[in-house]
Amino acid sequence: MTDFDYYAFARRHIGTNGFEQQQMLTTVGYDSLDDLVDAAVPAAIHVREAPESAIPAPATEREALAELRALADQNRVRTSMIGLGYYGTLTPAVITRNVLENPSWYTAYTPYQPEISQGRLEALINFQTMVTDLTGLDTANASMLDEGTAVVEGMLLARRASKSTSNRFIADADALPQTLALLASRAEAVGIELVVRDLAGADDLTELGAHFGVFVQYPGASGRVWNPSSVIAASKEQGALAVVAADLLALALITSPGELGADVAVGTSQRFGVPMGFGGPHAGYMAVRKGLERQLPGRLVGVSQDAAGHPAYRLSLQAREQHIRREKATSNICTAQVLLAVMASMYAVYHGPAGIRAIASATAAKARMLADALREYDLHLEHDAYFDTLSVHVPGLASTVVERARDLGVLLWEHDEATVRISVDEATTVDDIHAVVRAFGGPETASYSWFQVTNGLPDELRRTSTYLTHPVFAAHHSETAMMRYLKSLADRDYALDRGMIPLGSCTMKLNAATEMESVTWPEFASLHPFAPEADVRGSLALIEQLETWLAEVTGYDTVSLQPNAGSQGELAGLLAIRGYHHANGDTERTVCLIPSSAHGTNAASAVLAGMSVVVVACDELGNVDLDDLRAKVETHAATLAALMITYPSTHGVYEHDVKDITQAVHDAGGQVYVDGANLNALLGFARFGDFGGDVSHLNLHKTFCIPHGGGGPGVGPVAAKAHLAPYLPGHPLAQRTDHAGGFVHGGGPVSAAPYGSPSILPISWAYVRMMGAEGLREATGAAVLAANYIAVRLREHYPVLYTGENGLVAHECILDVRPLTAATGVTVDDVAKRLIDYGFHAPTMSFPVAGTLMVEPTESEDLAEIERFIEAMIAIKAEADAVGRGQWPADDNPLRNAPHTAESVIAGEWDHAYTREQAVYPVRSLVRGKYWVPVRRIDQAYGDRNLMCACPPIEAFA
Amino acid sequence: MTDFDYYAFARRHIGTNGFEQQQMLTTVGYDSLDDLVDAAVPAAIHVREAPESAIPAPATEREALAELRALADQNRVRTSMIGLGYYGTLTPAVITRNVLENPSWYTAYTPYQPEISQGRLEALINFQTMVTDLTGLDTANASMLDEGTAVVEGMLLARRASKSTSNRFIADADALPQTLALLASRAEAVGIELVVRDLAGADDLTELGAHFGVFVQYPGASGRVWNPSSVIAASKEQGALAVVAADLLALALITSPGELGADVAVGTSQRFGVPMGFGGPHAGYMAVRKGLERQLPGRLVGVSQDAAGHPAYRLSLQAREQHIRREKATSNICTAQVLLAVMASMYAVYHGPAGIRAIASATAAKARMLADALREYDLHLEHDAYFDTLSVHVPGLASTVVERARDLGVLLWEHDEATVRISVDEATTVDDIHAVVRAFGGPETASYSWFQVTNGLPDELRRTSTYLTHPVFAAHHSETAMMRYLKSLADRDYALDRGMIPLGSCTMKLNAATEMESVTWPEFASLHPFAPEADVRGSLALIEQLETWLAEVTGYDTVSLQPNAGSQGELAGLLAIRGYHHANGDTERTVCLIPSSAHGTNAASAVLAGMSVVVVACDELGNVDLDDLRAKVETHAATLAALMITYPSTHGVYEHDVKDITQAVHDAGGQVYVDGANLNALLGFARFGDFGGDVSHLNLHKTFCIPHGGGGPGVGPVAAKAHLAPYLPGHPLAQRTDHAGGFVHGGGPVSAAPYGSPSILPISWAYVRMMGAEGLREATGAAVLAANYIAVRLREHYPVLYTGENGLVAHECILDVRPLTAATGVTVDDVAKRLIDYGFHAPTMSFPVAGTLMVEPTESEDLAEIERFIEAMIAIKAEADAVGRGQWPADDNPLRNAPHTAESVIAGEWDHAYTREQAVYPVRSLVRGKYWVPVRRIDQAYGDRNLMCACPPIEAFA
Repeated sequence: MTDFDYYAFARRHIGTNGFEQQQMLTTVGYDSLDDLVDAAVPAAIHVREAPESAIPAPATEREALAELRALADQNRVRTSMIGLGYYGTLTPAVITRNVLENPSWYTAYTPYQPEISQGRLEALINFQTMVTDLTGLDTANASMLDEGTAVVEGMLLARRASKSTSNRFIADADALPQTLALLASRAEAVGIELVVRDLAGADDLTELGAHFGVFVQYPGASGRVWNPSSVIAASKEQGALAVVAADLLALALITSPGELGADVAVGTSQRFGVPMGFGGPHAGYMAVRKGLERQLPGRLVGVSQDAAGHPAYRLSLQAREQHIRREKATSNICTAQVLLAVMASMYAVYHGPAGIRAIASATAAKARMLADALREYDLHLEHDAYFDTLSVHVPGLASTVVERARDLGVLLWEHDEATVRISVDEATTVDDIHAVVRAFGGPETASYSWFQVTNGLPDELRRTSTYLTHPVFAAHHSETAMMRYLKSLADRDYALDRGMIPLGSCTMKLNAATEMESVTWPEFASLHPFAPEADVRGSLALIEQLETWLAEVTGYDTVSLQPNAGSQGELAGLLAIRGYHHANGDTERTVCLIPSSAHGTNAASAVLAGMSVVVVACDELGNVDLDDLRAKVETHAATLAALMITYPSTHGVYEHDVKDITQAVHDAGGQVYVDGANLNALLGFARFGDFGGDVSHLNLHKTFCIPHGGGGPGVGPVAAKAHLAPYLPGHPLAQRTDHAGGFVHGGGPVSAAPYGSPSILPISWAYVRMMGAEGLREATGAAVLAANYIAVRLREHYPVLYTGENGLVAHECILDVRPLTAATGVTVDDVAKRLIDYGFHAPTMSFPVAGTLMVEPTESEDLAEIERFIEAMIAIKAEADAVGRGQWPADDNPLRNAPHTAESVIAGEWDHAYTREQAVYPVRSLVRGKYWVPVRRIDQAYGDRNLMCACPPIEAFA
Repeated sequence: MTDFDYYAFARRHIGTNGFEQQQMLTTVGYDSLDDLVDAAVPAAIHVREAPESAIPAPATEREALAELRALADQNRVRTSMIGLGYYGTLTPAVITRNVLENPSWYTAYTPYQPEISQGRLEALINFQTMVTDLTGLDTANASMLDEGTAVVEGMLLARRASKSTSNRFIADADALPQTLALLASRAEAVGIELVVRDLAGADDLTELGAHFGVFVQYPGASGRVWNPSSVIAASKEQGALAVVAADLLALALITSPGELGADVAVGTSQRFGVPMGFGGPHAGYMAVRKGLERQLPGRLVGVSQDAAGHPAYRLSLQAREQHIRREKATSNICTAQVLLAVMASMYAVYHGPAGIRAIASATAAKARMLADALREYDLHLEHDAYFDTLSVHVPGLASTVVERARDLGVLLWEHDEATVRISVDEATTVDDIHAVVRAFGGPETASYSWFQVTNGLPDELRRTSTYLTHPVFAAHHSETAMMRYLKSLADRDYALDRGMIPLGSCTMKLNAATEMESVTWPEFASLHPFAPEADVRGSLALIEQLETWLAEVTGYDTVSLQPNAGSQGELAGLLAIRGYHHANGDTERTVCLIPSSAHGTNAASAVLAGMSVVVVACDELGNVDLDDLRAKVETHAATLAALMITYPSTHGVYEHDVKDITQAVHDAGGQVYVDGANLNALLGFARFGDFGGDVSHLNLHKTFCIPHGGGGPGVGPVAAKAHLAPYLPGHPLAQRTDHAGGFVHGGGPVSAAPYGSPSILPISWAYVRMMGAEGLREATGAAVLAANYIAVRLREHYPVLYTGENGLVAHECILDVRPLTAATGVTVDDVAKRLIDYGFHAPTMSFPVAGTLMVEPTESEDLAEIERFIEAMIAIKAEADAVGRGQWPADDNPLRNAPHTAESVIAGEWDHAYTREQAVYPVRSLVRGKYWVPVRRIDQAYGDRNLMCACPPIEAFA
């Protein structure tokens, strides 16, 4: 081994070493990894020789960081006073260190196994409570992707919930420009008529006729603070719903949307301690009045109870989510922004109501102080009432002022040639204020103080209602208390830092510390998404490199990083297909074929892209039924828009006929959308673009190491062939319209920010940079080997449901629990919960097939952990067999009662058929390293019947 | 509240808010904090009005970070090839993030309560195993302060253990210059004759006559690698012990000290992944051959067993430590470098034996490649055999070469005008090598590769023995596995992130995230301690500011930050007193008066400073017995060197007579050493220098927020009046000799590096900068209030042993458990271990009075946590009373059997007189947030009887 090899990052990323892989290969029955891959991957698509690659040779961790440092140094961080939904904020260091930089938080999965997710579920219910309190509404969800898409979701919610038969939605002209752009493109796709209108002071909306919804930005993008209650009332009288995008910080001082009559409030929690990050990720929010909670998109945390009757958190009303409702879903959102919502909620916990009010008051006072200073120079301000944003009238001089401010280190916003907009925030200093005054021609020296300055808010909107009154917002104001609260929550959760999370289709692999390191560098974290191009060259260069590399590994021509979740990537890809057909005059092409095995999000996305879904059957092996496909293609030939197919299939196998499938669709004039969820089984072995894909989304939070964050952030880039490039997402405020390969993306936006969530892109950049093409290929091989090894080791205990070529699986395997259930009554749920007692996160449960477990070990698990999992599964099988033999009653055994809390085996008399040790120490090694689940099995139905989505009273836990 | 106040860091640092403080004051019986302090602090020393302060008004967290950034930017990080004990190293990111930046590791206390310290004890036993393996010796301790002082300790060990009556110690002239300087000054203080001699090739040591020890640097400072075995053998024949300072990385390739015949091996583990940090902190090491283990200074981790017979780690042979043996102790070291030892051990765990060998081989190959390149230009190398360091002969040109290299970004070492020394390391790149070659006049372009280069090591010293063979060094080589190992260890420990650690005299307060942030900035972390002054101006400015502030708050004129532990600060202060007396011709002044209540380290330090200890009695209230003091002063008037006194006293009270005490000593010509361990009770209220102190050490890891790191690093600056300044520690390689206030420190060094442990000084700098004088004063008030509140609340349950003015304590209180023991048989040990079951770290046990608990809540605990502690103590008292009443047997009750592991209450039949719930859930709140102790009570005696200080075989845990 040379020392160059020694520092290869791939050796640290991949859990199994060469020696271990050889052992595993022997068990699986192959001599080498190449042999295995040759046998598993259909020859027709297998790329055996790595082509000349655009991906540079792998860098060591140190080298990659040095390159990132050089890219960061190309950015120039000036004080942003641009506003428009993105504000300076002071992230408490205790939150940065103990949440954002702590793998116990960032490597956790979505809380689908609520028993082992109580910590982040509590953080999320704090978030929901914070949002409902501040907005004055009744129920909030656990975050949205960003403010812009939240407004779109608000529009869609209004359409669903409104009794109006109108198809018209009225939007405030004083809304954020990116929001208006999103509304326009998304409304068009689903046939909503969007009317943009200056609503301020417009008491009479009758001239606009019938409409199903109205949207108000509050305060307005121009800074204006006005009372929209009569507009809202007038609109509601017509049967419309009112959607208000409200600034959370402003709501500490002004009347809440709920009090103004809004049905829905949306917005972002970015300024609650989450760095701007050149646009994201941040947590958007949505809250609704009572009666609309079942209409909420995304995830909703609620309180239920566990088997002991103790309160316990879990996701509520899951039946309304896209993975259940498929094309009947009302939204395609799955991944949200959990990690960022946690940060924002902790910001509120740390500051408490008085602190939030103090921060809001200081912000408002700074704006007033600046307004007063500008007025001294006879400058005209557009509005008399404002919170944090001023629009200053400087006819013909706007660009001069903005340029001068920039030279003084401050970024302002040139709204038009006569108007400069300035937003102050928590982080604005006296020096910043002075720089602004100087940019407008003020003196070189002056002194300012916002001590005893009031604000520019109108009295009639002064907030009188309370907020953040739950004790959690009063209990953790010292740093010590906050640190301990965060630790105590993290202790309740199971994340990758404890053990394997073998979640099929979710690819819970290593999120390396080196990959994460630059996320908190100010050069990446502190950029405003609309900062001038000259200030963000490093980030743009990074983005272009990543686009190039992602295009290369998938066989596409161009990539857009704008979609900030996989679901948004799907939508963007389908919208591109739609745009392409429309441009060709094929407006009738609206049918989207989707195999029955597809993830529900596919169908939901298709509907949101204005398509109608036709389901294609699968055969008994889990593959697309080629005959049915051909029949459906023929039936819909004239209207065929696209086929969506996941490869390898959601059944975890390399389908043999994929080229035939894509050919059939192309022959009928359709486009092929390949869902990239399972790309981890393919990198270096085959490329979507080579076997017929026209467009795909990738999940950077799966294949490319962005941590799941407990349920987000995700990043879902869309990659496409050249003919679709013009229809990929553009953005009205993007610094550049051209992308890797010189392609211009000209579609409507799908995210609020031009590049989605750029602050976390260095993670994926570093991963590709450190692995190189060869490392990526090695990782795929190790992942496929691990899945096949588990399949072989476990198949005599649990049938492996689907296999492909030569009886092999791809990167995951489906273990069929149904025979066990039939024989013993032990359900897949029992097995999943029992795995918690053994110290594991369960595999994916009942997807894609009910009654099964889909196991994806990924390449990052080492053999010892894989063996520990196999042994646990075998032991659980033996326990189930004992139930089957009648050794334990069907309703009282270690599986049915799993998971077992410490309290459940300690308190009171023990009257079970099995022992306390059998309950919690089924294998001896657990004595030395036990994860203690904080609650017993949670009653899902109880929580849905008794919906409670805000912090429960302290006494509930007594 | 203005927003300026709102961001005051003091509000976050101090746990109790104004409202809570008012409640507490009511209980204690005072109207205001000022009233309380007026009543507690003797009027004679109380500074009521804050004087004009050198400390600037408090900065917010953001402002302090910006100032630190500006200071960092004044440093210039070039590639160091200076060597001399400090080398470039690549810290694995997984270790930085999960150890150095993780409060679960850095906020832990010294593992005196081993049951709740099993994680870091395991990490330390890994460290000890690594050291014994690599050095080829039998027993290693859990770290030393640095290599230089480790050599001094080796010398002292040799004197103790040698049967020779000689007083002579022979040191290798090819030793590190700082080591030689330390040896010289420390030998002089204790009357050892030091002879420095070129030992290489000197087979015959008879000419030097009798000696008790010999010291060899291996490889030599010049880079030379030679076989010292015949020198060692010859020396040992005379009854001397051989001490070898060995480079741990070199030992991967060359014959170990143990195999060469060494009795003692010492050195540093810095290059095992710990950044240079401008000199520290790093973990030194010491290993000894069998038979010398009881002579080891510092802390030694061993394996014992718990009450269930399971293996468990704990500190071995504690009876030999300074706090037990006082003036009979063989070393004064208490705090070691645990956090850094953990990092170094994890570096070995992550790389494993093959990795360490690969890194060593690459380092040696780089040196060889460089040597070959230099020889091509006819340059003469001093030695033919070398590992990583070359001495190049360039008569008259050394400074020119060094300057040229510096311009090329590389720092070399000008040994003398004819010799340049160059050390390569793990981090050295081909570009660095090329810069060196160019500096010597090589070509502008050339190509290099150390692939297939061997090294410059002599065949006869090729290492053949194995190392790091324990499975722990093979099991965690992927990043995922490493992250989980670190998490699993941290999970076993109790640190400040779980709850209160109310350790009297140890001041376990908040270590704020903002304070910690800059520690890992490369501008502070990557400087070599002997880098040119022009490259380190930012660090020097920070040091000077901190010196100034510390002098100000203590009432002294000057401060030295060189001592890298409290014990070394004591020693430095006493050496300064000694130097002062000697300079005055008062060489007979060698008596050091020490009150009977003093910490044992005081006496041990006095002995090491060449003084003899005379104990002064204390009265029944715990105060110095003034009559006895006056008598002792009179008796020893002519030989009186100093009084050492702790203020407030180790009994936790403000002694009334302190001014009389200091006056009496001064009148007799003695100097007053005030031990600053309890400074947290005094900041802002009184100053050592104002009431008679001549010199003090401070503990930055107590009062000034440097985290304890699980048992180090510590920093123990020494502060003194002007007349002692010339005798404070100097350093032959210091960039500057003058210090704050313009004082030159001219004494011998006490640490290997000129400024001790500079990389962690930003922590204390930030603390003072963010608190300001007023914040420090508020913190003291809050700390004193918390201690008095606990005293008042608990005194009816446990007598408070000592109080001062008006029945008040200072910042801590001693709870007397002896009456309870007498009445019920429940011991202080039982109470301490029972506190673990309640989720607390025990207070200081049996110090300063056996059978008591000394409680120091500090200012950082909030009222809720203080109440939780009070309730636990009251509940424990009730449990003890139940034992007293005979409700539970004396030998089977929840106290005697504490702490209770989960296994102990789950496995098997329960045959105790109390219930399982009473064992582990004595209060209901524990059900929701239980810390599960990993082992039961540890049998201390068993471990000392069966000494085992390396990793136990895996089977032991089966």
